[in-house]
Amino acid sequence: MAGSSIGDIFKITTWGESHGKALGVVVDGCPAGLELCEADIQTFLNRRKPGQSKFTTQRKEDDQVEILSGVFNGVTTGTPISLIVFNKDQHSNDYSKLSDVYRPGHADYTFDEKFGIRDYRGGGRSSGRETIGRVAAGAIAVKLLHSLGIEIFTYTKAIGDIEIDYSNSDFTKQPENKLYMPDEIAYEKAVSFLSTLSGDGDSSGGLIECLVEGMPIGVGEPVFDKLDANLAKAVMSIGAIKGVEIGEGFSVSKSIGSENNDSFTISNGNIIKVTNNSGGTLGGMSDGSIIKLTAAIKPTPSIYKEQTTVNKNKEQVLINIEGRHDPVIVPRAVVVVESMVALTITDLLLKGMSSKLGNLLSIYKKQ
Amino acid sequence: MAGSSIGDIFKITTWGESHGKALGVVVDGCPAGLELCEADIQTFLNRRKPGQSKFTTQRKEDDQVEILSGVFNGVTTGTPISLIVFNKDQHSNDYSKLSDVYRPGHADYTFDEKFGIRDYRGGGRSSGRETIGRVAAGAIAVKLLHSLGIEIFTYTKAIGDIEIDYSNSDFTKQPENKLYMPDEIAYEKAVSFLSTLSGDGDSSGGLIECLVEGMPIGVGEPVFDKLDANLAKAVMSIGAIKGVEIGEGFSVSKSIGSENNDSFTISNGNIIKVTNNSGGTLGGMSDGSIIKLTAAIKPTPSIYKEQTTVNKNKEQVLINIEGRHDPVIVPRAVVVVESMVALTITDLLLKGMSSKLGNLLSIYKKQ
Amino acid sequence: MAGSSIGDIFKITTWGESHGKALGVVVDGCPAGLELCEADIQTFLNRRKPGQSKFTTQRKEDDQVEILSGVFNGVTTGTPISLIVFNKDQHSNDYSKLSDVYRPGHADYTFDEKFGIRDYRGGGRSSGRETIGRVAAGAIAVKLLHSLGIEIFTYTKAIGDIEIDYSNSDFTKQPENKLYMPDEIAYEKAVSFLSTLSGDGDSSGGLIECLVEGMPIGVGEPVFDKLDANLAKAVMSIGAIKGVEIGEGFSVSKSIGSENNDSFTISNGNIIKVTNNSGGTLGGMSDGSIIKLTAAIKPTPSIYKEQTTVNKNKEQVLINIEGRHDPVIVPRAVVVVESMVALTITDLLLKGMSSKLGNLLSIYKKQ
Amino acid sequence: MAGSSIGDIFKITTWGESHGKALGVVVDGCPAGLELCEADIQTFLNRRKPGQSKFTTQRKEDDQVEILSGVFNGVTTGTPISLIVFNKDQHSNDYSKLSDVYRPGHADYTFDEKFGIRDYRGGGRSSGRETIGRVAAGAIAVKLLHSLGIEIFTYTKAIGDIEIDYSNSDFTKQPENKLYMPDEIAYEKAVSFLSTLSGDGDSSGGLIECLVEGMPIGVGEPVFDKLDANLAKAVMSIGAIKGVEIGEGFSVSKSIGSENNDSFTISNGNIIKVTNNSGGTLGGMSDGSIIKLTAAIKPTPSIYKEQTTVNKNKEQVLINIEGRHDPVIVPRAVVVVESMVALTITDLLLKGMSSKLGNLLSIYKKQ
Repeated sequence: MAGSSIGDIFKITTWGESHGKALGVVVDGCPAGLELCEADIQTFLNRRKPGQSKFTTQRKEDDQVEILSGVFNGVTTGTPISLIVFNKDQHSNDYSKLSDVYRPGHADYTFDEKFGIRDYRGGGRSSGRETIGRVAAGAIAVKLLHSLGIEIFTYTKAIGDIEIDYSNSDFTKQPENKLYMPDEIAYEKAVSFLSTLSGDGDSSGGLIECLVEGMPIGVGEPVFDKLDANLAKAVMSIGAIKGVEIGEGFSVSKSIGSENNDSFTISNGNIIKVTNNSGGTLGGMSDGSIIKLTAAIKPTPSIYKEQTTVNKNKEQVLINIEGRHDPVIVPRAVVVVESMVALTITDLLLKGMSSKLGNLLSIYKKQ
Repeated sequence: MAGSSIGDIFKITTWGESHGKALGVVVDGCPAGLELCEADIQTFLNRRKPGQSKFTTQRKEDDQVEILSGVFNGVTTGTPISLIVFNKDQHSNDYSKLSDVYRPGHADYTFDEKFGIRDYRGGGRSSGRETIGRVAAGAIAVKLLHSLGIEIFTYTKAIGDIEIDYSNSDFTKQPENKLYMPDEIAYEKAVSFLSTLSGDGDSSGGLIECLVEGMPIGVGEPVFDKLDANLAKAVMSIGAIKGVEIGEGFSVSKSIGSENNDSFTISNGNIIKVTNNSGGTLGGMSDGSIIKLTAAIKPTPSIYKEQTTVNKNKEQVLINIEGRHDPVIVPRAVVVVESMVALTITDLLLKGMSSKLGNLLSIYKKQ
Repeated sequence: MAGSSIGDIFKITTWGESHGKALGVVVDGCPAGLELCEADIQTFLNRRKPGQSKFTTQRKEDDQVEILSGVFNGVTTGTPISLIVFNKDQHSNDYSKLSDVYRPGHADYTFDEKFGIRDYRGGGRSSGRETIGRVAAGAIAVKLLHSLGIEIFTYTKAIGDIEIDYSNSDFTKQPENKLYMPDEIAYEKAVSFLSTLSGDGDSSGGLIECLVEGMPIGVGEPVFDKLDANLAKAVMSIGAIKGVEIGEGFSVSKSIGSENNDSFTISNGNIIKVTNNSGGTLGGMSDGSIIKLTAAIKPTPSIYKEQTTVNKNKEQVLINIEGRHDPVIVPRAVVVVESMVALTITDLLLKGMSSKLGNLLSIYKKQ
Repeated sequence: MAGSSIGDIFKITTWGESHGKALGVVVDGCPAGLELCEADIQTFLNRRKPGQSKFTTQRKEDDQVEILSGVFNGVTTGTPISLIVFNKDQHSNDYSKLSDVYRPGHADYTFDEKFGIRDYRGGGRSSGRETIGRVAAGAIAVKLLHSLGIEIFTYTKAIGDIEIDYSNSDFTKQPENKLYMPDEIAYEKAVSFLSTLSGDGDSSGGLIECLVEGMPIGVGEPVFDKLDANLAKAVMSIGAIKGVEIGEGFSVSKSIGSENNDSFTISNGNIIKVTNNSGGTLGGMSDGSIIKLTAAIKPTPSIYKEQTTVNKNKEQVLINIEGRHDPVIVPRAVVVVESMVALTITDLLLKGMSSKLGNLLSIYKKQ
């Protein structure tokens, strides 16, 4: 069944394989009137581009995005926005030897079982390049949210067991280091850790955290399209993610009610929460505090070490994965998480417009 | 926007407030030919019923389910199955004093902000009673999965920091103790911990784990309706859940590729994974191993201690929550998690039927 | 697959069989703040009730609706509204002899082939009683539209070849005669025609027309969820409807562009169309003129004449359909058409709220 | 809101404006294993191409389709199929003068009102070129249906009041004349009629009919996703269509039950209908007879005659539409209707796979 769309009102549909002609996305339902140009999107794609550091794959892709529709005179028209990135640096030959072998930790086996056929070149549809469409669309969502005063800040929280120290982290600006860690000390340690790991031909996992500031209150649609539920789905749908938390997440299991409950108080005439253990949601709706989401990323499954596996003929074989792959996927995934969060919030904001009859009257009565 | 439906092919729509006339669910898209009676569903509802132990709310509800449609002569007909549970033990008076106060950790404030109005009786739509519809529908999904040889086993993994010891746990049968813990030693410790906590008027969080055995390979629809993504959404949509993991979950962030990758091997002529760190999914599709999902539950926000909060008029007030509430929600949530997992898998199984042209031919050519 | 829901933002899910315990509908996504009581809905159900005249079935059903959820203190809360009508006058025995015979013009055969099982009592899910859910939900949509200044007027345009004369019809008020014809002369003729037909044990088809006044401009979502497209689906999904037209409909096939085009002009400072051949839509969006939709209804397939048919064992048999059935379904279908039109327009109005970035800003910036 | 997708399991999303860089479609949910190449699609696009006859616009577009994803080694892989057609012959200058004028019978006014902005070049998104995506996707659906033994035959039934004579029509092969009329005599008359009309700078409407043979029984999902309902929506969503009929359509309103009912009988051991007034559906599901759908097309609104209209500034103006436009849209719309019918049936076939528990068992138990 069709599974390449997400969102209902602000809906994206991604397409494309790692080594096909191109990859892209159709963004349907973007409100008309948003200024948009290719540079807005390119900035985001550049954040996920390979070849950024020695810890990310050296494949050289320009990944130049083109807007094919939906924008006229620099402004969105309300019609579907089609974005495309042509593949230029496909070395299909590198991969032909993988056509009948199942790489551990990859989707080769499940794709073959599900569909009976698989574009094995570079992982085909299960390649990290699939996220191009997500990020291109995410750039639009982030720009739209910005126009509403909503800002998203996403960063690497940990590489392996090297975690940032909040008190030492600068959350006021996008981290400039290549691992997108806001704590420079942790960054230095992570670089050193990754260098060692890389020398071993191995790979590391990590944590990505995302903060959303400026949310209106009440965004999220109980009881199934809750803000936290839709965020969890959107983020868990990213290739290597194995866990998602909101607010204090797993640690709440060890907490007690009197400590975990966030008290309400009044500040400058507004209702606010004294603490934010809930991570910005109550009952699946935004509560006016900062949304906080944390995601766990598994180590890149493509490693340079020899591994034991099987092939299509059900024979045990040894495998050495050649080609280009990242010893750590975390930094490149930061912008992907940000994109999925932005897309989710945008769709829910549009969904929430009709929560009150008064909103409907205010829009249609004035016509 | 409508947010009370989940699933596309096997779709459920829940409705009802804690203290309204009734609660229920419409299950649409259930294949015809499944034997079904009220007892099948009642068994599941009984697992979430209040008043089961001294750690769950003493509200006395029969929660008797009635099948109103979609079943004829004891068999599903393919038409929508409407299930209803009438509310019998509503003490609306208990709650009237909460009409303009926002309980910490509850959805009172966000409901008011989103909709401008709120059925404050017993939490209204955000009450735990909302899960009646989920569980009633889940019972049908579990029965359908059983007919395919798929079994789900769900249990309490931890209460506070008291965690089960896997080597000491019996996973072959539904735990018979009132906390649904498969490890009797951990259970005893948890009982003791909860008694102390209860005496303090406080509450505890915990962990629920869910295992799914017998999955066909390739279930899940890349790239957004992946098995893990849809599970994450379904489980995160349950009231008190703050985190979801698949397989090794958050611990993968500290793992390295050579250890985290599950090698493939051949066993009895079949491809299997030597380990199951991935928790039964690869590329968002079932890989033939056991699906493993863990969820973190926050402590019940309703506690017997006085708390600081605000009211609608933006005044700081003190609140004492009276009425009946659970010092720990975890045991009652076990069957809710199981239900959401079953519903998700059922919907994805139906979605996966059309993955290959051959499946289509096998069904329609034989007619 | 689930097929009992329609609408995305304002979504209804109907359920129930003719002779089951009850029938009903869940209306999800209704904005909060609409005043609503059972009488609002009962008025609509009474318009489709059997036993209204000698030309409609004499089955005596109270068809009393109950609101089970989603309304608090007389106002919608934004949560799902569950409506139920219990069946009281089921004579299941009347139908048992039809369990293995396929009535001509009915869905008995197709239900059996699709699902392998069928609730044959009174047509089961394919009974006209299925429309109870549509009409109950439609009543809410009509009330919501009314609050926006949108009014729907639906009537019988023709019974057999007896058609109303527009110049002789009163379109200012709901027709009071039992056939809902706004032209009293045509009504008298139709009564006489139906009496004759009824004496023969036969049945008649007819036309229903629906006018919608006060529509904002631009409602409808190109290119697939166009206003006319969604209206066509909604109306064609009613049991006996075999054709749907917008505006001049089929006659445009014989028209030429210079005559069919509706010129624009200015009236009182507003853009209006001089004519309305388009029936109120341009490019699938409302154009500010009156929406006009016409639907063709087939003669009731249940007639009192002996017919030739087959049974499940593939034997040719004769059939005499006993029980209660209408010699003309048209008057009872008027309110069903009105309901489907209202539901469609309501959903599209809510969808259209996000067409412009400015609308989004006006709702969320003011918070 | 997003409105450019149709279908749920076999879902298409179209994008593109008349004078943008390109137009295209993403086909998501196509089962894996279907042989597919660009020529399969090109054949269909050629049927809608301009410049085919003197009665269709002389714009010269190659309309060469490219497959960008979802096909590997000549076979569909189950991943989204992205199809693109680059625009080559855009004369944007021709249209600039229309930027603030509302053409009668066009969507200029409604687009402006809905979105506040409009790509006025060549009608933008409301251009007939929007159907490129529909037809490209339709070609895939037709090929898939063919593999199941389902064939669709679509033709021009009438141009103005010149209607084909069934007894004189060859329904065994695609009509070879440029109006796609299966009756050569009617064709000659229509050519003569159109020549006269063309000389006047005027345009004509017409009728398109579509027959579907070889349908399995029971396709269609009651009660809203009925076969006839979804066909009505799909066909009515095509630009110039103003009416849709199934089977005898509007004429049933003048029929009586004893004549309109199709008797069942046994033929070669199978249940068949003696007549097919119902047009191949009963209760919204296919009944094994030929599906028959008729659609009414309005005269091309772009005519060479001077017309009265208004502009954005609400001034009355005269308009002469220059550029290239068809005096009759009917022949080019034939393949569009066929495509929408094929897409609808394909989606419903996939939806119907899960109607019986037995189907589910047959697919998953064999694994």
